[in-house]
Amino acid sequence: MADVLREVTDTDLDAIEIGAAILGTGGGGNPYIGKLRCREELKKGRRIPVIPLSELADNALVVSLGGMGAPVVGVEKIEQGEECLRALKAIEKETGRRVDALISAEIGGANSMEPMLTAAQAGLPVVDGDGMGRAFPEMQMTTWSIYGHRAVPAAMADEKGNIVVIRDTPTDHWLEHIARAAVVPMGAACGLATAPMSGAFVKRVAIPNTITQALNLGRAVLHAHRAHLDPIRTVIEQENGRLLMTAKIVDLERHLKGGFAVGHLTLEGFGDFAGESGHIDLQNEFLVFRRGGVVEACVPDLIVVLDSDTGLPITTEMLRYGQRIAVLGLPCHDLLRSPEALEIVGPAAFGYPDITYEPMPAAGGRAA
Amino acid sequence: MADVLREVTDTDLDAIEIGAAILGTGGGGNPYIGKLRCREELKKGRRIPVIPLSELADNALVVSLGGMGAPVVGVEKIEQGEECLRALKAIEKETGRRVDALISAEIGGANSMEPMLTAAQAGLPVVDGDGMGRAFPEMQMTTWSIYGHRAVPAAMADEKGNIVVIRDTPTDHWLEHIARAAVVPMGAACGLATAPMSGAFVKRVAIPNTITQALNLGRAVLHAHRAHLDPIRTVIEQENGRLLMTAKIVDLERHLKGGFAVGHLTLEGFGDFAGESGHIDLQNEFLVFRRGGVVEACVPDLIVVLDSDTGLPITTEMLRYGQRIAVLGLPCHDLLRSPEALEIVGPAAFGYPDITYEPMPAAGGRAA
Repeated sequence: MADVLREVTDTDLDAIEIGAAILGTGGGGNPYIGKLRCREELKKGRRIPVIPLSELADNALVVSLGGMGAPVVGVEKIEQGEECLRALKAIEKETGRRVDALISAEIGGANSMEPMLTAAQAGLPVVDGDGMGRAFPEMQMTTWSIYGHRAVPAAMADEKGNIVVIRDTPTDHWLEHIARAAVVPMGAACGLATAPMSGAFVKRVAIPNTITQALNLGRAVLHAHRAHLDPIRTVIEQENGRLLMTAKIVDLERHLKGGFAVGHLTLEGFGDFAGESGHIDLQNEFLVFRRGGVVEACVPDLIVVLDSDTGLPITTEMLRYGQRIAVLGLPCHDLLRSPEALEIVGPAAFGYPDITYEPMPAAGGRAA
Repeated sequence: MADVLREVTDTDLDAIEIGAAILGTGGGGNPYIGKLRCREELKKGRRIPVIPLSELADNALVVSLGGMGAPVVGVEKIEQGEECLRALKAIEKETGRRVDALISAEIGGANSMEPMLTAAQAGLPVVDGDGMGRAFPEMQMTTWSIYGHRAVPAAMADEKGNIVVIRDTPTDHWLEHIARAAVVPMGAACGLATAPMSGAFVKRVAIPNTITQALNLGRAVLHAHRAHLDPIRTVIEQENGRLLMTAKIVDLERHLKGGFAVGHLTLEGFGDFAGESGHIDLQNEFLVFRRGGVVEACVPDLIVVLDSDTGLPITTEMLRYGQRIAVLGLPCHDLLRSPEALEIVGPAAFGYPDITYEPMPAAGGRAA
């Protein structure tokens, strides 16, 4: 597993699916369909070459892409499969330049698979890294935007032949607003590719090696299953995280607000956490974990909810009253912890101006 | 007034405003702000040259443009004034071609003024004609679309610097859907320019001479005011129309549906029409007029509501209980009466599959 990843093969896809879903922290969409589409491409003899971030040429032209859905949870349309490819071609036409490599905007969830699928279709390599290191709900929440790349011109394409180029916007926030509105008549799902970046920039700001990370994380979980090891412990060790609580969901409020799944969970601890109460706020992703009313973990650190028996991730729309879960905190990458990053992806950006982000201490076990 | 119009000057603007508002058949937005902006441009020494349709070169490149608002009646934002100019420039960039002349998508209402404003700003002439000969609520309802021109690539621009190019769509209906969604985050108003057309095509399908028509209509109304003539009679004679009813509004239902003003009026005749009842259905524009329950006029013919005293047009959002109005029927241009046109702008397209369009008989007075 210490080998440098040079290519994604069929046997890797199941593991990446699991790892990406864990890194989705409850959101990011389901990578399952994308996995099947990647598998189809590989069966046709196409390949998914991977470029390690460190080997990316400074002058390489890299496009970040992914699927964008209207934020209506549970009404996900299955993509025709070439939406991102069409968006990529629209970007090449718009800029008059040939793209050298693709990178995921978001490793967490469905968009782990999209650039790999497009890479196979387009005969391009995919860079081992992404723009979030997890899932976030909006497009300006990438390290590309945070560290100064302007995402326009960006191109949206759907399966019906609609192609929309958002050529100029005052900020990437505007791109998010306009694309979010335009995707609705496009059947609520499209592929979206943003303005090409230089290899030098991507090397500097990408969350590094996240395909490898998802792959290794998924492999570890699968190995734990086969070897009858504790998958929860496996995830924690693999990601240098912490077990925040094992608990039963005793209350669940979830509704749609502005198209996003918004709500919170109330938890009653069991095992080592018997007698404790917990609380998780969610907005598509899990945002804030409180123990006895006190914040213990929050964005941009990853709050992950796993089935306490299987260790498999539970997305926000799959939460149910009475579920027994393990809540994990995984430290985010330092690129998400800078002042400029926290302005875009810190708690205040999600409506928690009173929560001061404190980097989660990386530790295998429970904090003292 | 028989002279060929070669240029729009300051003194023409008030008349065009009135004429365009009458041709708006209750919708199309208010041309007042556009008129003031045109006046500002003329004061700066800029000009609004007009090309008669018959003199347009076959190989001239003509762009149809206008303002597009989110369909929320009464929440019209005042444009910054260069939205359409920016959209025009985006089209020139997208196609790599220099545009020779502009034409209004819609002479009725506010979009009578937009191409004249852009013409003054861009130093281009405006063609004497338009794509509707009246106002319609949606973009595919132009003679350009009806007679086979594809409106993509189309460009939208707002005052904040957002530029969206809708590069490809399967039909112009899709363009309408996507643009209508994208305009909402753009502050609910933008300038929209569509794919260039050849002069030869425009000569064949434009509703001809509609700037001149609006100008002469407005002049006639202004003259009637000065000369204490009957302005209602003046409009009827000028447009070869019919007086359908003079009446009081005795019931008014109007609500927003899909963003459009939808509703109906119940009328109680007075004067020559005493004892008669009338009914008008509206969807932004006035669509159907019934007398005693029987359809007497419907789209695409123009149903115009004027103040019965002043002869000035009343838009759908200015309707009030108790108003005394004159309802006029004006024949639309034959280009809107073909089978292919009726499919897009006939009664069935507005949700009246049971109404068969019968061309309104052109007559000065009341039908026998």
